[in-house]
Amino acid sequence: MSSTIKRLAILGSTGSIGRQTLEVVRALPHRFRIVGLAAGQNMALLSKQIREFEPDFVYYQGKKARTQLPDGDYEPLSLEEIASHPQVDIVIIATSGKSGLSPTLAAVKAGKTVALANKESLVMAGEIITKEAKRNRAPILPIDSEHSAIWQCLKGETQKATQLILTASGGPFFGYSPDQLERITPKQALKHPSWQMGKKVTIDSATLMNKGLEVIEAYWLFNIPFDNIKVLIQPQSIIHSMVEFADGSIKAQLSYPDMRLPIQYALSYPERLPNPHLPRLDWSTINKLTFESPDFDTFPCLNLAIEAGKKGGTYPTVLCAADEIAVEFFLSQRIEFTDITCLVEQALEQHQSISHPTLEEIMAADIWARQKIQELVGAST
Amino acid sequence: MSSTIKRLAILGSTGSIGRQTLEVVRALPHRFRIVGLAAGQNMALLSKQIREFEPDFVYYQGKKARTQLPDGDYEPLSLEEIASHPQVDIVIIATSGKSGLSPTLAAVKAGKTVALANKESLVMAGEIITKEAKRNRAPILPIDSEHSAIWQCLKGETQKATQLILTASGGPFFGYSPDQLERITPKQALKHPSWQMGKKVTIDSATLMNKGLEVIEAYWLFNIPFDNIKVLIQPQSIIHSMVEFADGSIKAQLSYPDMRLPIQYALSYPERLPNPHLPRLDWSTINKLTFESPDFDTFPCLNLAIEAGKKGGTYPTVLCAADEIAVEFFLSQRIEFTDITCLVEQALEQHQSISHPTLEEIMAADIWARQKIQELVGAST
Repeated sequence: MSSTIKRLAILGSTGSIGRQTLEVVRALPHRFRIVGLAAGQNMALLSKQIREFEPDFVYYQGKKARTQLPDGDYEPLSLEEIASHPQVDIVIIATSGKSGLSPTLAAVKAGKTVALANKESLVMAGEIITKEAKRNRAPILPIDSEHSAIWQCLKGETQKATQLILTASGGPFFGYSPDQLERITPKQALKHPSWQMGKKVTIDSATLMNKGLEVIEAYWLFNIPFDNIKVLIQPQSIIHSMVEFADGSIKAQLSYPDMRLPIQYALSYPERLPNPHLPRLDWSTINKLTFESPDFDTFPCLNLAIEAGKKGGTYPTVLCAADEIAVEFFLSQRIEFTDITCLVEQALEQHQSISHPTLEEIMAADIWARQKIQELVGAST
Repeated sequence: MSSTIKRLAILGSTGSIGRQTLEVVRALPHRFRIVGLAAGQNMALLSKQIREFEPDFVYYQGKKARTQLPDGDYEPLSLEEIASHPQVDIVIIATSGKSGLSPTLAAVKAGKTVALANKESLVMAGEIITKEAKRNRAPILPIDSEHSAIWQCLKGETQKATQLILTASGGPFFGYSPDQLERITPKQALKHPSWQMGKKVTIDSATLMNKGLEVIEAYWLFNIPFDNIKVLIQPQSIIHSMVEFADGSIKAQLSYPDMRLPIQYALSYPERLPNPHLPRLDWSTINKLTFESPDFDTFPCLNLAIEAGKKGGTYPTVLCAADEIAVEFFLSQRIEFTDITCLVEQALEQHQSISHPTLEEIMAADIWARQKIQELVGAST
């Protein structure tokens, strides 16, 4: 049996995706073993996870953290060391923000299978990561529900898709006017209608920035022109995305919004495993699925992101970094909801992009954008 | 290029599926060549088709028909001779009723690829046909939109489906009460809300008998227990069917209701070919897809069919034959719409089924059922 057990390392094990990955592993203990765990902040939860899953390697931040963790036979390693360790079969990149970039690169360079939940890695360094993945035959398997849906629909198809249709719930403010958006509080923005997620991605869902980042991610994952990637509002979040083929036939993937399904699919691929904890669609309770076009005027982040993706270079990095800082300012109530877009837009306008950037140039653009947002907010408050 | 041209024989070329198959061939002349045509009634249209497509073999009924057909360098052959001819790559079985059975069997015995639109072949003789197809490595490719959808969703999946969800438009009388159904005229029943089809299948759609036959067909095509085949009403006929997998993930196939897509997919498989005549879904005009459970009480044909399928033997043959004659009586206004069900039910009740029947036993059951319906109608009028 041991040959069928996949050895997993979860980077970001205490976050939303990390915890749900461990739920999948808990449900299928004969198929997966946790060999590595990594967390940056929640040492109490990491301690519990270490006791339960007994990993061989653990990453934690700083010496003080060590004193909070249980004793045990685990080796402290860096994120990059875990991501490239010979004993790891699949690296789950479930960290948030740019911290996923360096371990993702280490994993693909080591030829690991990468299950990718972190959007920023491909958005910021899609060219570098996909090139290294190809060179080292490291499969990048998407964990995002939309990209997992597309990947599932493409399974067995030998020809490229003619169109990807990324669905979006529309977020909590779908149908709002620009005026209504101005008075939004962080509390309102953190209430997502269909998905339970981390704070950053929940705000990004409310601005539709999240969907824009997913368009860029889809571009790198599926090697399809931006003009062939559409966004469609599907408020019930049952259809997770669709693919159109050369003959006009469309395939869609459906399920309740539950991240454990795309997580499990990436881990078990190419197999599908029965898991009694995963809910099955009950069609007697689903009366309708509705569809609407996104409101690009009221939610300009979507186009900002797509345009940054098309231009390439270091623009997508600036988009990510500026958005991250702007969202932080919004959550700490220093700026309005609608300021997020304005700030990101200004940062992009003022940025001097570099084509085909190196990792160092990407990191420099990241720092530039963060400083730019702080400067812009400082200047305006 | 000639090695990529597939040579087709269409049995039933003047019917709805036959004509649409020729539309696909007309749009993709560099990929397909018509080598055989067969029609039973419409000699005027068959003549036009012979002139346009210049087949090598033609089937027509009776000597008189020959005088109505154009001169040409084609050989008159039987349906079975065309279906098994060495020069044929794919046999499209687009005849209606039991006339598809014998040529389908001839085709699979000859190891041909069979593109199957005729429901009765598998419903009546599923065991014999699938056994011969397996023995002779003859692929049976579905042309029905529902089975094509399932087949497309299964593409690339290595494990069996846990559930097939066959969608149904619900027919023109969806939502009617049993009382309302009694006053239905043939003219009303022939108006299908979303599909343009032949008369027999249109009436079968109105009684839901058609969906019941499709459940039996799905059982034989995909080798899945009857209890794992569900029927779901999807009135817009955009989702053509769905498949649920072991992990609970569902895949669906979508398009406008247009038979040319499943026809082309079966012919071009495993490729998908661009065809400018095939419409692409325009999501800006699709606001919603709705779903409802079928009303088994008002449309008892659905359960009659499923039960006949489960019991097996010669019951499905009696179901088909009794329904065919009952529908004819309804169209000629000798019985009411609701009598169709009653007659089929009585025939099934009075039938002595034979398990694992031979072809002769199937044909005998067919004749028995036809006589039984005539007897029952004669006795009641």
